Amino acid sequence: MSYQAPVKDMLFCMKELAALEQVAQMPGFEEAGLETAQAVLEECARFNEGVLAPLNWEGDKNPGSWERGEVKTAPGFKEAFRQFAEGGWQGLQHPAEFGGQGLPKTIGAACGEILNSANLSFALCPLLTDGAIEALLTAGTPEQQQTYIPRMITGEWTGTMNLTEPQAGSDLALVRTKAVPQGDGTYRISGQKIFITYGEHDMAKNIVHLVLARTPDAPEGVKGISLFIVPKFLVNPDGSLGKRNDVYCASIEHKLGIKASPTAVLVYGDDKGEVGPGAIGYLVGQENRGLEYMFIMMNAARFAVGVQGIAVSERAYQKAVQYAKERIQSRPVDGSANKAVPIIHHPDVRRMLMTMRATTEGCRAMALVAAAAYDAAHHHPDEQVRKQNQAFYEFMVPLVKGYSTEMSLEVTSLGVQVHGGMGFIEETGAAQYYRDAKILTIYEGTTAIQANDLVGRKTARDGGQTARAIAAQIEATEAELARRDSPAARAMLTRLKAAREAFLQVVGFVCEQVKGHPNAVFAGSVPYLMLAGNLMAGWQMARGLIAAEERLAQGQDEAFMRAKIATARFYAEHLLARVPGLRDAIVEGGESVTALPVEAF
Amino acid sequence: MSYQAPVKDMLFCMKELAALEQVAQMPGFEEAGLETAQAVLEECARFNEGVLAPLNWEGDKNPGSWERGEVKTAPGFKEAFRQFAEGGWQGLQHPAEFGGQGLPKTIGAACGEILNSANLSFALCPLLTDGAIEALLTAGTPEQQQTYIPRMITGEWTGTMNLTEPQAGSDLALVRTKAVPQGDGTYRISGQKIFITYGEHDMAKNIVHLVLARTPDAPEGVKGISLFIVPKFLVNPDGSLGKRNDVYCASIEHKLGIKASPTAVLVYGDDKGEVGPGAIGYLVGQENRGLEYMFIMMNAARFAVGVQGIAVSERAYQKAVQYAKERIQSRPVDGSANKAVPIIHHPDVRRMLMTMRATTEGCRAMALVAAAAYDAAHHHPDEQVRKQNQAFYEFMVPLVKGYSTEMSLEVTSLGVQVHGGMGFIEETGAAQYYRDAKILTIYEGTTAIQANDLVGRKTARDGGQTARAIAAQIEATEAELARRDSPAARAMLTRLKAAREAFLQVVGFVCEQVKGHPNAVFAGSVPYLMLAGNLMAGWQMARGLIAAEERLAQGQDEAFMRAKIATARFYAEHLLARVPGLRDAIVEGGESVTALPVEAF
Repeated sequence: MSYQAPVKDMLFCMKELAALEQVAQMPGFEEAGLETAQAVLEECARFNEGVLAPLNWEGDKNPGSWERGEVKTAPGFKEAFRQFAEGGWQGLQHPAEFGGQGLPKTIGAACGEILNSANLSFALCPLLTDGAIEALLTAGTPEQQQTYIPRMITGEWTGTMNLTEPQAGSDLALVRTKAVPQGDGTYRISGQKIFITYGEHDMAKNIVHLVLARTPDAPEGVKGISLFIVPKFLVNPDGSLGKRNDVYCASIEHKLGIKASPTAVLVYGDDKGEVGPGAIGYLVGQENRGLEYMFIMMNAARFAVGVQGIAVSERAYQKAVQYAKERIQSRPVDGSANKAVPIIHHPDVRRMLMTMRATTEGCRAMALVAAAAYDAAHHHPDEQVRKQNQAFYEFMVPLVKGYSTEMSLEVTSLGVQVHGGMGFIEETGAAQYYRDAKILTIYEGTTAIQANDLVGRKTARDGGQTARAIAAQIEATEAELARRDSPAARAMLTRLKAAREAFLQVVGFVCEQVKGHPNAVFAGSVPYLMLAGNLMAGWQMARGLIAAEERLAQGQDEAFMRAKIATARFYAEHLLARVPGLRDAIVEGGESVTALPVEAF
Repeated sequence: MSYQAPVKDMLFCMKELAALEQVAQMPGFEEAGLETAQAVLEECARFNEGVLAPLNWEGDKNPGSWERGEVKTAPGFKEAFRQFAEGGWQGLQHPAEFGGQGLPKTIGAACGEILNSANLSFALCPLLTDGAIEALLTAGTPEQQQTYIPRMITGEWTGTMNLTEPQAGSDLALVRTKAVPQGDGTYRISGQKIFITYGEHDMAKNIVHLVLARTPDAPEGVKGISLFIVPKFLVNPDGSLGKRNDVYCASIEHKLGIKASPTAVLVYGDDKGEVGPGAIGYLVGQENRGLEYMFIMMNAARFAVGVQGIAVSERAYQKAVQYAKERIQSRPVDGSANKAVPIIHHPDVRRMLMTMRATTEGCRAMALVAAAAYDAAHHHPDEQVRKQNQAFYEFMVPLVKGYSTEMSLEVTSLGVQVHGGMGFIEETGAAQYYRDAKILTIYEGTTAIQANDLVGRKTARDGGQTARAIAAQIEATEAELARRDSPAARAMLTRLKAAREAFLQVVGFVCEQVKGHPNAVFAGSVPYLMLAGNLMAGWQMARGLIAAEERLAQGQDEAFMRAKIATARFYAEHLLARVPGLRDAIVEGGESVTALPVEAF
């Protein structure tokens, strides 16, 4: 089997770190305890291992093709999507009133990881549809919700996010697409959008585009952007499909990775439909508040992209382990065998595999703990608890997105490296993960955009309060570690403490200097993100270490618990050990980043 | 222009760091001073910028094709190779008596960088031919030398290295290809070789394969491997081409990168030539000493692959700078403009570009200083000086190879990142460098193989003597820095000292523990390589900083010298700052690498 979902580690995280049993006591989640989680994850694993994982490499080799505005997706995708939809997977986290299952994000995030490990290109379609559903749940009228959400949940229709234009990528203030009101409540949309994932495809009957555009009198910049629903086919009052709207897929991109996910150039208003010139669009919420609504989708999508980083890391790890166990090459350096052995016995191969494993487990734990905070922020009966959890979750989103995806570059690169020369041959499959992963640090906001968010909205805005509150929690974990006497706990304590202190120094630097020396602070924004993400993942590994030692003392699942402990110790000694160097670079190296004048480049 | 050779920085390195004027006083190099260097580099730049650089992306899109054993190279390659050969570029470093120009490696390495920046796939052909020439110069008979070397230098013929077999990659002990003596001094070779770069192509009339194989009575393992010349076409006594030999290209690989360089599967002895079954081969040197000779090629090739890492980094850097100056997006964080600006004004883009630049300059300086040591090791009149330089050079080879190529992964990844979403589109061209670079940490010995060499032969074997001697030289540079009073010198001093001390601790750890705890030491071998490479490159940046400050005081070339100083300071604060964390991981983290039992993966 090419992929086996790490259900056991997910359940460990949910039980020991994300406190799923507490989530399951919140109103609305009464049925979402560990037993449900296990049943859902096992079913999810079965579907993805069996149906989607085998299509992954095939889709890379034979990606979708474009002809006269229509896109044929990769072999097997259409049928797989039918099964995905029938299995109810699109509705996992969405409200029961629209046909969803209303499960917590804690469970949904784990399922998302499995889906993305199995097939990153395929998974993007449901990921974007989730975002469209979220946006309509927040800002759509009841009628819009009734018209679009149930059919997206059943998988009859899918959703997209239309933000980017050639001149407007990270900077949405530059969006130029026009929306002209028609007096009947509708708008006519015209302009060009690029990089629209699943902007055109053959897996569903209709595509619900959510499009950022400007009305004629809108103010300049981001405060003049509105959000519109533009369905590929207009929807009749009875829900049946009507005329083809004026949105046309002019081409799809030739990409480094995620090749089986069609990335469309969409042209609006070129009179290529059945409605005359101008695509018919429906305003979502109020005019000029489009960016705000889009950020709802973006925030859900950012977290989901972080999970993609974990997912591709897990898949690359599994493939590397398999190869390292099979490939025989060279005698062991410790003289323990007199002939060539499987390369997993060589220390450097082990270092690579452990780096991959520890990183993936750390990021997974971080993401699931963040997801549980999201659940508590939305479902906990106590407002104060909701607020705290919301602040924690918001702090974690750029870290889950930024750190997990940046690390997925290192992990998938190591995955190729473990394979040696075979890794460079496309048919081996390891290179696909390396290529696929590279988009994750770019889309839904580059790492720099995540880091700006971390510095500005998440750290400086509250004067470092949330950051320091989290550091205090980490200190409590250190105290627990200090009460233990194992070598692993001691090693973890040393590195966790040093990392937490480095984090606090950087938080102090950011808060003190951001006004007076913004260039120096933002010069360190990505290193700060990497430092904080590393620490948060390491903290969860520390909590897992403590839990595993306790379970071990209770005689539970010895091999698994020992592996958690060994992996946590590796994380401390090899990943957390990077943190102090980052602190030095951020706090003392801010000036040298911008010292070279632009002309000197 | 898509690429401009960094001739000025190369000349700075040669003059201020690699002491080319001293090299030019050694016997045989009398004409190879700075003036010659400048003339050669400028001519080299002209040829590569004009002819080879424009073919790079085209070759990626339309790589060579295979049909019935023959390989057609990418569009333009054949004609470009003709010009390359006519320009005399293959003979740059080779002896005048065989038609070469006999220039120092110091100049040859810089030309190699330019060639590889222009077109990595193309450059592999001359790179391998250089290796074949080196091997024959060392171990070939005078007749073999006369037969093969001059025609390889003119570019009529090219050379290859045939090491790898499906079961024998890093572990050459597992080579199975057979060589049966025919009683007439020739051998019949049979077996399969894989991953043979330019093993078949249409750019030259003949291909000189250097092949590792076993004679019937050879001992097992690496001590039973011999080296053979197997020409694609036999060579008549008058030098004209004779019968087609029994070596057949069964296929070429579908690779992640360097697509325009055909990577051949070669079958020997399948009776596909005109000589009956078994390829006719000629023994090089003595039987069973093949690995030793091959290592001569390998060592030259390893250094050259390190230069490839620098080359692809430089090209990626130039592309990223160009995009960052043109792409307009978002207002500056310091409020210095009220509208969107070129992204090079954003601190994180600057951080990425500076990381790319500082790494590339540091690795280039390290490689050129190592090359000068090679020249002194071969040409200095004093034996003691030759020996010292040989030890220094040999210590540097795994660092030039390992560090420069590992860092090229980071640099080319940043190159994609600077381009944002456009970087993921293949037509942009940034992704090609990311794909191409990934082979560099693998071929000619993976980073782990380099690191084994560093730990075993280069550090432990002489009890750390060479390593400590280098550290003493670094300390002398620190003393020079301490006498200066600039902020840049102070910043450099702090980080260089910390890095040098960390290096010495690791060297002590390696020497003390390698016998008793080989697994713990080799678990840290790659981190040790990264630490040492980082330090050596940083040391050269420190020497460059001192030289630049002195030239600046003399009023020389202000903008250039200021840029050298700013880049060196960045290197210190952002790259050297990583070193202490590596020390911690190596010295304290050795056990946790192999703690997880194989069954737990």
